[in-house]
Amino acid sequence: MPPISPQAKTRILRGDNRAEYGKESIAQVLDSSFLCHVGFTVNGEARVIPTAYVRVDDAVYLHGHLKNQMMNALLDGQTASICVTLLDGLVLARSGFKHSVNFRSVTLFGKAEKVADDEKEDLLDILVDYMVPGRASQIRPPTPQELNATLVLRIPIDEAAAKIRTGPPLDKEPDYETDVWAGVINLETHIAEVENCPDLKEGIELPEHIDSYLSQKKIFV
Amino acid sequence: MPPISPQAKTRILRGDNRAEYGKESIAQVLDSSFLCHVGFTVNGEARVIPTAYVRVDDAVYLHGHLKNQMMNALLDGQTASICVTLLDGLVLARSGFKHSVNFRSVTLFGKAEKVADDEKEDLLDILVDYMVPGRASQIRPPTPQELNATLVLRIPIDEAAAKIRTGPPLDKEPDYETDVWAGVINLETHIAEVENCPDLKEGIELPEHIDSYLSQKKIFV
Repeated sequence: MPPISPQAKTRILRGDNRAEYGKESIAQVLDSSFLCHVGFTVNGEARVIPTAYVRVDDAVYLHGHLKNQMMNALLDGQTASICVTLLDGLVLARSGFKHSVNFRSVTLFGKAEKVADDEKEDLLDILVDYMVPGRASQIRPPTPQELNATLVLRIPIDEAAAKIRTGPPLDKEPDYETDVWAGVINLETHIAEVENCPDLKEGIELPEHIDSYLSQKKIFV
Repeated sequence: MPPISPQAKTRILRGDNRAEYGKESIAQVLDSSFLCHVGFTVNGEARVIPTAYVRVDDAVYLHGHLKNQMMNALLDGQTASICVTLLDGLVLARSGFKHSVNFRSVTLFGKAEKVADDEKEDLLDILVDYMVPGRASQIRPPTPQELNATLVLRIPIDEAAAKIRTGPPLDKEPDYETDVWAGVINLETHIAEVENCPDLKEGIELPEHIDSYLSQKKIFV
């Protein structure tokens, strides 16, 4: 990760007690999810699209079809805004004004570059393995046609900030004396179940990389 | 919800087998989460910020501090892009190319309007009750100062589309004969625990609205 410092777009203007500009905090949040929301413009108007990503060193990588509108818009020279958000809990205070959520989020800015053809396959493997470790080597490798139909974009993290809230509600002083219950409801994402593909070839058992993925108690953390 | 039909910004260009423009599908996805990502522009560049929302009829409502940069940018006449995404599962196919996720998402577009002062308190109650049903009547009501410091924005849903993927991996025909395991790992968000505020006044027990919130098996669905 490059040196990151608050710049015009990432200086947290309000709630700056929750702001973090350290490379480690930013990397930690980015490495806790694989789903981001990409902000870009088309004809001067904002659009937001969810997509998968992986962080490698000082960049995040996105992929999509050659004709994908977002991927092509990102290649027109504009600065993309990418946001990753993990919701950790509901913060229920004694007043509505002090209600909040515990969360970790990163907003980063960068200009997309096309990843060269001879690096695409490696990056796509990294993307698959980032989602489910060990899977890339177990699946059928991409064909030249599939690689040609896929764009991989590198977004160097030119500017970034993390915003993190943890802990109990922080109420206004007199409200602590009221009879209102206050606290935090913590949330976690879990694996609910695994379903074999209904067309699975007979005799194929759950492979080790899936077994070990399933053994995680919670995911994205 | 108003009649919604695919328009320039919301016509799904690729993967249109996953597109839904029906009002009910759109409302169902919007009513399954309270966290959205708001896309807007500042000096012509896209920004994305996560925030809470609630849908009422044919609009979504956001709130924030009077001086919040996003809230004020949304009031400059631009069209906001709001995206809600629920991740339901990892779709692990026999090739990397066919890997996907099961998800429900809505992207909508609209121009923000300020909610009038005399409607603000009701909307803020609706926001609190949407997050935890029954809570608004149990907390200390907002002071005039708090109401003055809070902006509530109405974003009429002028254009919207839902994109939904469910079901098993869809592989290329010859890949079904390979020995690769394929299937879906379903994900769910649960309540992990509830923590009383450490400064809770003695003798306050968990109120009924929290008990009944905690009795949900999974949330956001």
